[in-house]
Amino acid sequence: MSNGGEFPAVLELNVGGVAYTTTLKSLTNHPESLLYAIFTGREPILKDAKNRYFLDRDGVLFRYVLDFLRDGNVVLPDCFRERERLKTEAEKYMLHGLVEAIANESKNRPTGAITVGYRGSFQFGKDGLADVKFRKLSRILICGKVDLCRSVFGETLNESRDPDHGQSERYTSRFFLKHSFLEQAFDMLIEQGFKLAGSCGSGTAGGATTDLKPGVDAEENRWNHYNEFVFVRE
Amino acid sequence: MSNGGEFPAVLELNVGGVAYTTTLKSLTNHPESLLYAIFTGREPILKDAKNRYFLDRDGVLFRYVLDFLRDGNVVLPDCFRERERLKTEAEKYMLHGLVEAIANESKNRPTGAITVGYRGSFQFGKDGLADVKFRKLSRILICGKVDLCRSVFGETLNESRDPDHGQSERYTSRFFLKHSFLEQAFDMLIEQGFKLAGSCGSGTAGGATTDLKPGVDAEENRWNHYNEFVFVRE
Amino acid sequence: MSNGGEFPAVLELNVGGVAYTTTLKSLTNHPESLLYAIFTGREPILKDAKNRYFLDRDGVLFRYVLDFLRDGNVVLPDCFRERERLKTEAEKYMLHGLVEAIANESKNRPTGAITVGYRGSFQFGKDGLADVKFRKLSRILICGKVDLCRSVFGETLNESRDPDHGQSERYTSRFFLKHSFLEQAFDMLIEQGFKLAGSCGSGTAGGATTDLKPGVDAEENRWNHYNEFVFVRE
Amino acid sequence: MSNGGEFPAVLELNVGGVAYTTTLKSLTNHPESLLYAIFTGREPILKDAKNRYFLDRDGVLFRYVLDFLRDGNVVLPDCFRERERLKTEAEKYMLHGLVEAIANESKNRPTGAITVGYRGSFQFGKDGLADVKFRKLSRILICGKVDLCRSVFGETLNESRDPDHGQSERYTSRFFLKHSFLEQAFDMLIEQGFKLAGSCGSGTAGGATTDLKPGVDAEENRWNHYNEFVFVRE
Amino acid sequence: MSNGGEFPAVLELNVGGVAYTTTLKSLTNHPESLLYAIFTGREPILKDAKNRYFLDRDGVLFRYVLDFLRDGNVVLPDCFRERERLKTEAEKYMLHGLVEAIANESKNRPTGAITVGYRGSFQFGKDGLADVKFRKLSRILICGKVDLCRSVFGETLNESRDPDHGQSERYTSRFFLKHSFLEQAFDMLIEQGFKLAGSCGSGTAGGATTDLKPGVDAEENRWNHYNEFVFVRE
Repeated sequence: MSNGGEFPAVLELNVGGVAYTTTLKSLTNHPESLLYAIFTGREPILKDAKNRYFLDRDGVLFRYVLDFLRDGNVVLPDCFRERERLKTEAEKYMLHGLVEAIANESKNRPTGAITVGYRGSFQFGKDGLADVKFRKLSRILICGKVDLCRSVFGETLNESRDPDHGQSERYTSRFFLKHSFLEQAFDMLIEQGFKLAGSCGSGTAGGATTDLKPGVDAEENRWNHYNEFVFVRE
Repeated sequence: MSNGGEFPAVLELNVGGVAYTTTLKSLTNHPESLLYAIFTGREPILKDAKNRYFLDRDGVLFRYVLDFLRDGNVVLPDCFRERERLKTEAEKYMLHGLVEAIANESKNRPTGAITVGYRGSFQFGKDGLADVKFRKLSRILICGKVDLCRSVFGETLNESRDPDHGQSERYTSRFFLKHSFLEQAFDMLIEQGFKLAGSCGSGTAGGATTDLKPGVDAEENRWNHYNEFVFVRE
Repeated sequence: MSNGGEFPAVLELNVGGVAYTTTLKSLTNHPESLLYAIFTGREPILKDAKNRYFLDRDGVLFRYVLDFLRDGNVVLPDCFRERERLKTEAEKYMLHGLVEAIANESKNRPTGAITVGYRGSFQFGKDGLADVKFRKLSRILICGKVDLCRSVFGETLNESRDPDHGQSERYTSRFFLKHSFLEQAFDMLIEQGFKLAGSCGSGTAGGATTDLKPGVDAEENRWNHYNEFVFVRE
Repeated sequence: MSNGGEFPAVLELNVGGVAYTTTLKSLTNHPESLLYAIFTGREPILKDAKNRYFLDRDGVLFRYVLDFLRDGNVVLPDCFRERERLKTEAEKYMLHGLVEAIANESKNRPTGAITVGYRGSFQFGKDGLADVKFRKLSRILICGKVDLCRSVFGETLNESRDPDHGQSERYTSRFFLKHSFLEQAFDMLIEQGFKLAGSCGSGTAGGATTDLKPGVDAEENRWNHYNEFVFVRE
Repeated sequence: MSNGGEFPAVLELNVGGVAYTTTLKSLTNHPESLLYAIFTGREPILKDAKNRYFLDRDGVLFRYVLDFLRDGNVVLPDCFRERERLKTEAEKYMLHGLVEAIANESKNRPTGAITVGYRGSFQFGKDGLADVKFRKLSRILICGKVDLCRSVFGETLNESRDPDHGQSERYTSRFFLKHSFLEQAFDMLIEQGFKLAGSCGSGTAGGATTDLKPGVDAEENRWNHYNEFVFVRE
């Protein structure tokens, strides 16, 4: 057992059987941590048969603990599946900064669902079916938690129909976008880490030609549908 | 072969060819286990050529066995794909606590499907298609196993239309939510580990203007659709 | 080169560069195998520079070969992606039992698709849209290979409308369930390792009030839809 | 540096830091390769500090290179994500056979999409909604690249409505199946490595009772829908 | 500590505990980098207990850093989940070329969504439902960012209905394809790394037989639907 302050500049560690090598400087960057206590000689540490400093903790997750010790922050892999396990390790090492960093990462990138919907119709062509008719939509509707929607769509979000400005914890289904490019909305969501999780469409029940609005021809009236796309960030 | 009680404080193990290092204390925390029997000298153990204690078991899964020995519980990675294999290992080591921990984890987080459905319509606008019309829905329907639905939606679940209170093993398609925010329902499911697995929509067959209900205008009548979203937790 | 019968109880192996340690007993459990021939001295074996027994085969897959040698069976990880590669290894080692175990695993858990469909309508409410209307369905339809459907739904499957009892290799679209809980059907499929792979819905063309059946009110007639859910096991 | 022909029968390699062990025979199986040139003494090779033969290439991918050297072919894991990287390695080693094997694998299993569609209706029942009505379909339509469709459906494919026999590089939407079991079509696609990537359904606009065809009752006419399922192999 | 220029031709590295072996030539290929400074003797470097050159950085990601040092470029695995982490490493090593290579890779393969839509109908048959009716479509619509659509569909894209040629940063919903093979469009997207993320369909509201266009029979009029398929590249 070693509990003196006589540590070399480069240390070989045995963390649960996995070998790591790092510097004394990296190990003593965080005064509140167990590792600081150990590698300043305040806490004893066992050694293994090869004279490496031994920590009775998981060997694989120490990779990220070491990242944090070296750089003061941690960039986790996409879709990292051992977040909960890493938090446990951070707590055992009393690395409050790392616990916080993991928590902040979740906070700065909250999970949740945003639904993008649109009522679409088709422009009529002059020459029957052979003529091209494009998808036509007047508004892209956005539903979800208010602050999540704001963080994704920013300035492109029109909140004028939604009266309760300022409250961010509530949900709304009364936002829409200032532009009418569906794929631009998709791209903004994808860029923010959302994935399209499901979609569904339905047409209107129709034929009631008596309630035609101004500027809507008979074919557009027949072609009304509502498609909605659920995006989720995990 | 070593069968005396003379074990060092830090032990090097060779588990099927993978090296682990741990403490005698960790290895003897569970009196009913094979490892306790071995490392208190009641059972013999082979050694490898490097004088490490040798266990003829899978080397990779021992990572989680060691977690359990150290902390008394185990936090598995998300989407862990060797659950069944780990259970086999736990049984071979006679670590009843670990077998139980794996079983409990599954029990506390039962798999299953919950369907969220809604009948939607659209509010009419005064100025034709150029006017914004939002999705309008009166009730969010919840279908699935009674206790699974309760565990996800808690106080936000309205059970008043479902007569058989208290029975939890049965299924229902008569729950609805107290609020009408679809994305809030989605977020609660996502938070509980459910994923959107599929969705489908359909419109009503329509035009029967004769059966208009009070408070429903002609356009809303045309825009009726039913969308349902199947969430699954695995 | 070593071809005498003088093998130690614990052996260090070098399989394509990956180190494994196991017992002579494990290696000689299967008399028909190449490993039996080798480790009873009937076949020669090379040694590496560290005096470990050397096998010129893949080092990673030997993990599962060793599982089989130790326990007589093998539990593969979920979604194991090297099944075909493992079969090749098993053949090279002449471990017929392992080849069979891999084949049996596939046979006992055949891949395939099962479609769950339902025709749904809505109960009418007395007070217009504000009133809750639940999804109403009379039959859950099951389509797919006969024996696959039986293995999933067992006693809950109603085969009375499907005349050719006993034939299991054929396909049917004439099974339905004895109960009407859609999510219970989903849960049974999920429990058997199926995943929801796709879903689609469509409404009836409607309004033909003249063909109303007994017990069907006008609104239910308008709300008819057919949703189908394709589950796949891989 | 070693450039004599004096190589042992079992060689320890250091490939970018990862240790492999193999035989001289495996390394010299391919006369056109860099490894042949090296291990017959025609090209020099460096050694590392432990006297292992050193290759300044990726250590992980050498696993598959070694597979090819040993067996003359390579079985890659399902969903292998380093195909492009492996091709680069094969080229650096001048293993033309391996480059070809990777290319052939892609060629024998071309990626692509096949759409399965069907127009469905429902059989009428005598006793209203309580009676079972099954999905009824007359033809399963197959759309996609001609040779891809043929390779999946073989003898079950009806090409009689598609005039241009023999051309395989073109696309068609005029194939259908000789049977009417949707799930059998799904199973054949799944068996060939396709996955259901998306699906959508739509109903006909209806009610035009005047164009009833012979053998179609009024309810079937109302229940017409078109569902299509897009399968993709990657 | 070693800071002289006396480095061997083959070097053993210890990168955060993971062993790598490479050549001095590979390490000094990039004059602006920290590794060049170190291995030309301008910057000091620590050594570990086994006399290996020690870098206090992540050991796993150094695999790709080494790829870049050797070949001057890097081919990342498909769906690589540590891109952000690798960028951090590249910056720490002052390998501007690697930072750029990672950025270029993202730039040359921009993420985004492209929607493929079509208005479909069915050809009528002479003999009622028993006759085959194929999906019929006149135009395949393409929506998304202009340059993304161009990069996927190239010469097969018809831009004639979209007036603002030349601008690439904007979005359009007015492109269509010169051919009418839906699955060919899918195949081109798949080949470029897009995946089908969602799809939805809807039928027209119908029956208004009075607005029949030339060349459209009554059944085609009933069978109009609009299906759209959202493809995403991440």
